[in-house]
Amino acid sequence: MCNRSLFAASLLTAFSLPAGAQNQTLPQRLGYPADAKLLIIHADDLAVAHAQDMASFEALDRGAVSSASVMVPCPWLTEVADYAKTHPEADLGLHLTLTSEWKTYRWGPTAPRDQVASLLDPQGYLFSETLEALRHIKPEEAEREVRAQVETALKMGIRPTHLDSHMAVLFAKPALLAVLINVAHDYHLPFLMLKIPGVPLDMYSALKPTDVLLDHVFMAAPPIKPEDWLSYYTHILKTLPPGVSELIVHLAYDDAEMRAVTVDHPDYGSAWRQRDFNVVTSPEFRVALEENHIKMVTWRELGKLLPKP
Amino acid sequence: MCNRSLFAASLLTAFSLPAGAQNQTLPQRLGYPADAKLLIIHADDLAVAHAQDMASFEALDRGAVSSASVMVPCPWLTEVADYAKTHPEADLGLHLTLTSEWKTYRWGPTAPRDQVASLLDPQGYLFSETLEALRHIKPEEAEREVRAQVETALKMGIRPTHLDSHMAVLFAKPALLAVLINVAHDYHLPFLMLKIPGVPLDMYSALKPTDVLLDHVFMAAPPIKPEDWLSYYTHILKTLPPGVSELIVHLAYDDAEMRAVTVDHPDYGSAWRQRDFNVVTSPEFRVALEENHIKMVTWRELGKLLPKP
Repeated sequence: MCNRSLFAASLLTAFSLPAGAQNQTLPQRLGYPADAKLLIIHADDLAVAHAQDMASFEALDRGAVSSASVMVPCPWLTEVADYAKTHPEADLGLHLTLTSEWKTYRWGPTAPRDQVASLLDPQGYLFSETLEALRHIKPEEAEREVRAQVETALKMGIRPTHLDSHMAVLFAKPALLAVLINVAHDYHLPFLMLKIPGVPLDMYSALKPTDVLLDHVFMAAPPIKPEDWLSYYTHILKTLPPGVSELIVHLAYDDAEMRAVTVDHPDYGSAWRQRDFNVVTSPEFRVALEENHIKMVTWRELGKLLPKP
Repeated sequence: MCNRSLFAASLLTAFSLPAGAQNQTLPQRLGYPADAKLLIIHADDLAVAHAQDMASFEALDRGAVSSASVMVPCPWLTEVADYAKTHPEADLGLHLTLTSEWKTYRWGPTAPRDQVASLLDPQGYLFSETLEALRHIKPEEAEREVRAQVETALKMGIRPTHLDSHMAVLFAKPALLAVLINVAHDYHLPFLMLKIPGVPLDMYSALKPTDVLLDHVFMAAPPIKPEDWLSYYTHILKTLPPGVSELIVHLAYDDAEMRAVTVDHPDYGSAWRQRDFNVVTSPEFRVALEENHIKMVTWRELGKLLPKP
C-alpha cells in the first residue's frame, strides 16, 4: 500500500472553491485573459536527498519547473539553503513535513522532540504513514512543529513563497488544515489547498475571502506504467482547463543514494523520480506546453495578490 | 586548514600508556604471543552518508576491515542500525560526534537542542571545527549529548563494542576526556585513548587500572599524494610494532552523494575515501598483512578483557 495514496487520491480530483468576494477569474487577477491556462509546475520534496536537490535545481535552472517546495526536517536542507541564497529568484516554498515515509532512511522533527511527542514513533522519528500520523498527532504540537519549520527555513536564508503539506497530513483534518491556514496567514503566504470531495465545508472555516486558491491540482499516482509516463503528462497538458493549476512532480536522479532512500518502494521511488525528471525536461513536454497555450506561473506571483502585511 | 589536523597530528604519534597492574602484554592477554603484531583495521564515520555505509559494509563483509564506528547524529544512522541487526557479529562502536565539519551538509545534536546549547553554532548545528567546539562546549552538556548518542544507538539496536571520538574533540581537554572515560566505564566498553605528546598526565586521571589501552594508533593525514596511497599504508604494515594497534581509515564510494557531502574539502574527501577503500580491499594490502605476520583483531575481543559488570 502506497504511503501516499490518500494524497494522490485527493489530488487527482480537480477542485474549485468559491473565489470569495472576487468577481475576476484568478488568471485575470494575475494580468492574463479570463480563460488563460496557467500552470505552476511544482517539484516536491527538496532537501530529502542530494539526488533530489540536484535534479530539482537543474529543472528549476532550465525552466522546466516553475516552483518547488522544501522539507525542512530533512538532511540536505543546508544544500537547499545554499541554493536559495545564490538563486533569490527561485520560487521555493515549504513542504511542511509531519511524516518520514521511507523504509530505512528516516528523519525526526525540527522542533525539540520533547515538545512534539505526539508526532513521533517509538524511535523518535516522524510517523511513516499519513493515517498513523493522523491517529496520534495533537494539532497544537503540529502547529509547534510547523512554526519551527518556517522559522528554521527563515533562519537558514530560505524566504518561502508558499506553503504546502507533505503526504497531505495537514489537508486531512479540520484542526490540521486550520494549522496550515493560520500559519500561512501569519506569514502572509499563499498555500496549496486541497478540496477533498465529500468533505464537509466546515473543513475550510479558517479561510479568509482574500485567500488565493488554485483552480486545479494534478499529480501522478500509481499505477502508471513506465512506458506511459510521457503520455500521462502530455494528456494533462492537452486537457488542462482554464484557470490556475498546479502539476506536482517528484524529481531526482536515479542513483545509488536515491535508490537507497526509496528502497523497496517503487511508487514515488528513485526510478519514478528519474522518469518525472526526464518528462518535464523533454522536448515533447515543452512542445505540449506551447501547443496547448499553457503559461507557466509561480507561487510568488500568486502571493502578490494577497493583502499587504 | 584541515578540520582534522589536530586529530591527525595527535594520532600520527604512536603512544603507549602504563599497562596498570598487568604484567602481561596486551597480545598475551588476548591469547597471542607476547610480541604478536595485532591490528584493528577500523573504518570511521559510518552513518554520515549512504556511500560511506555501503563502502564500509562491503569492507566489513569482505574482512578488509575488522571494526568500524558510527556517528549517531548523522542522517544514515537508520541504515547502520539495519546492518547491525542483520550482522550481529559486526564489530561496531560509536564514533561519538560533537562536530559537523562539512561545508554544506550539516547535522545537529542527538539530545534536544535546548539541553546542549553550548554544542551548537548559531544555526543550531554542531560546530564545524574542533578548536571552535572546544572554545564553547560545556563538559556537562558534552556528557548529556554523549549519553544521548549511546542511548539512541542502543534503542536502534546497535550494541556498541567500543567508543571513540570524531575529530578528537573528546581527547582534547581533561574534562572532555573524563566524559569519554566515565561513559565508557558506565557501559562497560573499551575506548580509543590518545596520548598526545606533552599533555600532562592528569589528563588521564579518570582511567582505571583495568582499562584496556591500545599500544599504537595510525591514521593517514595530509599531505599524501594519491599515487603514494598504497605505499603509505603498506609502510605502516611493514613497520608495525608488536602490540595491539589501530589503523583508522575512512571508506566511501566516490560518487555524487559523497562528493556533495565533502564538497570543497579534498582532505578526507570523497576521492580520499575511495582511495582508502581501494587500498584496504587490494590484494597488495592483504599480502602485506600476511607477509608481516599481522593478525587482525576487534574491539569486541578487547572488551572481553574488561571486568564483568
